[in-house]
Amino acid sequence: MDYETPQFYRVMQYAARADRDVVDMVSGNPDWDPPAGIREGLKTYADADAAQFQYAPSRGLPGLRERLAQRHGVDETRVVVTNGTGEANHLAMTGGLDHFSGTEVLLVDPVYPYYAGRANFLDAETRFVATERDGRLDADAVRAAASADTAVIVVNSPNNPTGAVYDAETMAALVDVAEENDALLVSDEVYERFDYSGRFASALAADSSNVVVTNAFSKSMAITGFRVGYAVFPPAEGPTGDLVETATTRHMLTNVSGSRPAQFAVERALETTGEDYYADARRRLTERIDRFCAALDTVGAEYARPDGGFYVLARFPDFPGTFEDAYALIDEAGVAGMPGAAFGEARADSLRFSLTTDRVGAAAERLVDYFG
Amino acid sequence: MDYETPQFYRVMQYAARADRDVVDMVSGNPDWDPPAGIREGLKTYADADAAQFQYAPSRGLPGLRERLAQRHGVDETRVVVTNGTGEANHLAMTGGLDHFSGTEVLLVDPVYPYYAGRANFLDAETRFVATERDGRLDADAVRAAASADTAVIVVNSPNNPTGAVYDAETMAALVDVAEENDALLVSDEVYERFDYSGRFASALAADSSNVVVTNAFSKSMAITGFRVGYAVFPPAEGPTGDLVETATTRHMLTNVSGSRPAQFAVERALETTGEDYYADARRRLTERIDRFCAALDTVGAEYARPDGGFYVLARFPDFPGTFEDAYALIDEAGVAGMPGAAFGEARADSLRFSLTTDRVGAAAERLVDYFG
Repeated sequence: MDYETPQFYRVMQYAARADRDVVDMVSGNPDWDPPAGIREGLKTYADADAAQFQYAPSRGLPGLRERLAQRHGVDETRVVVTNGTGEANHLAMTGGLDHFSGTEVLLVDPVYPYYAGRANFLDAETRFVATERDGRLDADAVRAAASADTAVIVVNSPNNPTGAVYDAETMAALVDVAEENDALLVSDEVYERFDYSGRFASALAADSSNVVVTNAFSKSMAITGFRVGYAVFPPAEGPTGDLVETATTRHMLTNVSGSRPAQFAVERALETTGEDYYADARRRLTERIDRFCAALDTVGAEYARPDGGFYVLARFPDFPGTFEDAYALIDEAGVAGMPGAAFGEARADSLRFSLTTDRVGAAAERLVDYFG
Repeated sequence: MDYETPQFYRVMQYAARADRDVVDMVSGNPDWDPPAGIREGLKTYADADAAQFQYAPSRGLPGLRERLAQRHGVDETRVVVTNGTGEANHLAMTGGLDHFSGTEVLLVDPVYPYYAGRANFLDAETRFVATERDGRLDADAVRAAASADTAVIVVNSPNNPTGAVYDAETMAALVDVAEENDALLVSDEVYERFDYSGRFASALAADSSNVVVTNAFSKSMAITGFRVGYAVFPPAEGPTGDLVETATTRHMLTNVSGSRPAQFAVERALETTGEDYYADARRRLTERIDRFCAALDTVGAEYARPDGGFYVLARFPDFPGTFEDAYALIDEAGVAGMPGAAFGEARADSLRFSLTTDRVGAAAERLVDYFG
């Protein structure tokens, strides 16, 4: 499988060239405003002393790391601020492949394509575990697929593209599978703030030496372009203490440090952003989910209402989710979705729709007209 | 050799703990103001549409890449905007090791420690070519050291730590050596704007398929913390066209994209910053060089006046540049310099002083008092 963006571009470019108005439900860029603290933070930074324009510490601004450590109840030494969740996942996956004896990366199907792309680029083997049709992940299926060859297991909850939220029991079982197989569980929790089920459970709860949690402000603060993420590694004094050391070195030798204006703005926004900001985003998305799912019901599509995140994976009757179908939907219905084939094999019959547009209502109407 | 920062930290922390006032000449962070366009650019961006807070294209903002391509007279498709020169060098070195059959990285001694640290981290062999005592690099010595084992040759002009500027003849010869040995010349030109000799020559002049040039705005715009750099690769349609493709993929799978507020501000600053800004910085540094070198003359230190960059490498009589000597200079003279041993073996007898402080005059007086 290729990595994500070129496939996204293919569909987005097709939509842009279309001879009609198209509602873009391809990209996962939030369409709402960042917290006021982001804009204020950038302005404050713009007037800062010249010294503040120089290198941030490689592992991140101290105040930011401190806040992150407090939030997750971990020691600061476990936190590395990264260039978005992208780099956090890169550090976690490369570190897991280095540390553990296996050479295989275990992934869930459907899969966020970057995980598979990165594993391929790193010359790791990949093995896929299909989710249930509704997106739930059966930990026993992961256990059955895991082996001594497994170095890394990557999961994502709330999930892109299924919208599933893995509950505490599932997460605990996944941690067990990693421990049983001497492997690393990489838990990408970037959609944490978009949990509508109340069941979100962080893999950090397990307090395991076999877990790295990755996260970012890209989605929660609607700043995918800022590239401020982080990874929480096992404690340096534990049996996998080299993971955080190696990641710190790799981060430094790859990027030196993250971009300071962005880190500064995020730190300020963390100070000033209340829970209402995140609640507003959830409310906005819940309304869109209601609206979109009502249309799916009307036309008899097969789908699972998302428990988290902002994507809906749906299969329309007699309309599998190939690239050709996605193009047809653009031309004939004026709605652009992402072919399920971009996310693996298990849901190649579906299309993924991102709810990060205020035109979800228009898209819903068009789908009803087209399939109804 | 370890990578740079921990060694820098060791000396900086020692200086911070010292029981007296110390002039910090360790870090290479510019102490002057960024161009006004940087601050203005950040403020403009802070008020931008929410859409502008989302992912920049992975290879960089189009306007920024266009300007860079124009400046260097190359096609835009050859330019990848990176997270500082750090990532640019990372992409260039990993790409060279992937593409060319050798497994060895050829480096100059004294060496900027990140090059060696990265080569070690990538499990590449390293071979060092000592410069002349005055910092000049003899291309024939590089030719003699290069072989079929050589995959990558890394040079840096204007040079950190020697202050040497390699002339057009030397650069052309270095490109020839790379071509003769089926290797990649990585030319780090981040100090390009700090050429006092008028002899700076970019490796791009050679128009070779065996050259990647790396650069950034970190030093030229006094924004080391922003992390906006770039690499210029050989053309995609040439015999080494895969270099830019692989670098683009690696960049995407590692970082997704660079930080957009920083890229935006740099693009704005490129539009509005005149040559006088860079000339002012050179004037400021030339005054500091004059002042510092006069003190070195007074105490009979051995050194070469820098032709470029903002470092002076100097050996004081009976005072080789060990860490112990650096600590003694902090405690006894109140001046912190970086031990030459941090830069390899050739100049382990010297100390490197960074002129990025407005207290160069005070440091000069203290050195005269101490060694005079």
